[in-house]
Amino acid sequence: MTFEHDLKATVRTIPDYPKPGILFRDITTLLGEPRAFRRAVDQLVDPWAGSKIDKVAGIEARGFILGGAVAHQVSAGFVPIRKKGKLPHTTVRIAYSLEYGIDEMEMHADAIKPGERVILVDDLIATGGTAEGAVKLLRQIGADVVAACFIIDLPDLGGAAKLRAMDVPVRTLMAFEGH
Amino acid sequence: MTFEHDLKATVRTIPDYPKPGILFRDITTLLGEPRAFRRAVDQLVDPWAGSKIDKVAGIEARGFILGGAVAHQVSAGFVPIRKKGKLPHTTVRIAYSLEYGIDEMEMHADAIKPGERVILVDDLIATGGTAEGAVKLLRQIGADVVAACFIIDLPDLGGAAKLRAMDVPVRTLMAFEGH
Repeated sequence: MTFEHDLKATVRTIPDYPKPGILFRDITTLLGEPRAFRRAVDQLVDPWAGSKIDKVAGIEARGFILGGAVAHQVSAGFVPIRKKGKLPHTTVRIAYSLEYGIDEMEMHADAIKPGERVILVDDLIATGGTAEGAVKLLRQIGADVVAACFIIDLPDLGGAAKLRAMDVPVRTLMAFEGH
Repeated sequence: MTFEHDLKATVRTIPDYPKPGILFRDITTLLGEPRAFRRAVDQLVDPWAGSKIDKVAGIEARGFILGGAVAHQVSAGFVPIRKKGKLPHTTVRIAYSLEYGIDEMEMHADAIKPGERVILVDDLIATGGTAEGAVKLLRQIGADVVAACFIIDLPDLGGAAKLRAMDVPVRTLMAFEGH
């Protein structure tokens, strides 16, 4: 049994959630399995194990769980990228596309120093609207975005390709066809 | 310089946030400092370093960052406790008290098996309404709540005392007077 197969089997698929026709990929079952969680975190950043990472940026909310663990793994600081209005200090903000309409996300303006090497983390990449916004926000304050890491890729929705077109190396651990 | 002093100095205090008269303790500056973040995570669970922990439960959203790192540190699974309506599978739910009014939180009903040893993690304990609700929820599905860990204690608000009265060992790394 391969590692990918093994890990993929820990993801729970929930049909018709949040609406009819959607297969929701639930990673809480992966996170709850100690061995799977640890291996996912290790594998996510394995290509950068030997290089210095200053910060790990996680996207609210599931990206916080993985990002916290990844930051601990690579001995980096953690930087939260949050929905607007939730950070207490001076922020930078960007609008990003959702499936329906737009929203805004923000981070503290002093969270990353220019030139610092940053890995972006979230649980899943679909259309990539959120991740694209996060990369732009990180670059806006001068971060060197070393990679974007996701447990799950939905390649048919094109998000990973979108990030690669922005010269961001993308790391994913498994793919599901369709969406 | 003691460890507590050292770590405490990395917490940023923001006056009059979110409203006049409140001193907001901002831990993003602690999380962003690699050495402080790592030492906080290590110190949080140091008393349980030698004992088996099955799951770490983190409270949305800042508890996800710390909880993910703590779960990685102790090689446990991670269980999210979320605001209602955000988890895709069958949940258990509980109402809890906020400063004004009540809200509800939930977790997946199958996230923890009866008898599993669980550490609850959040960034800060104030009045303890959220943490008390989380402990009740964990016990409702049969978890053995080994400890509740927080970086910051606001002892004047009585939350840690409330948890101890429920026979939950409480671990905090620093205290701020007032609220």
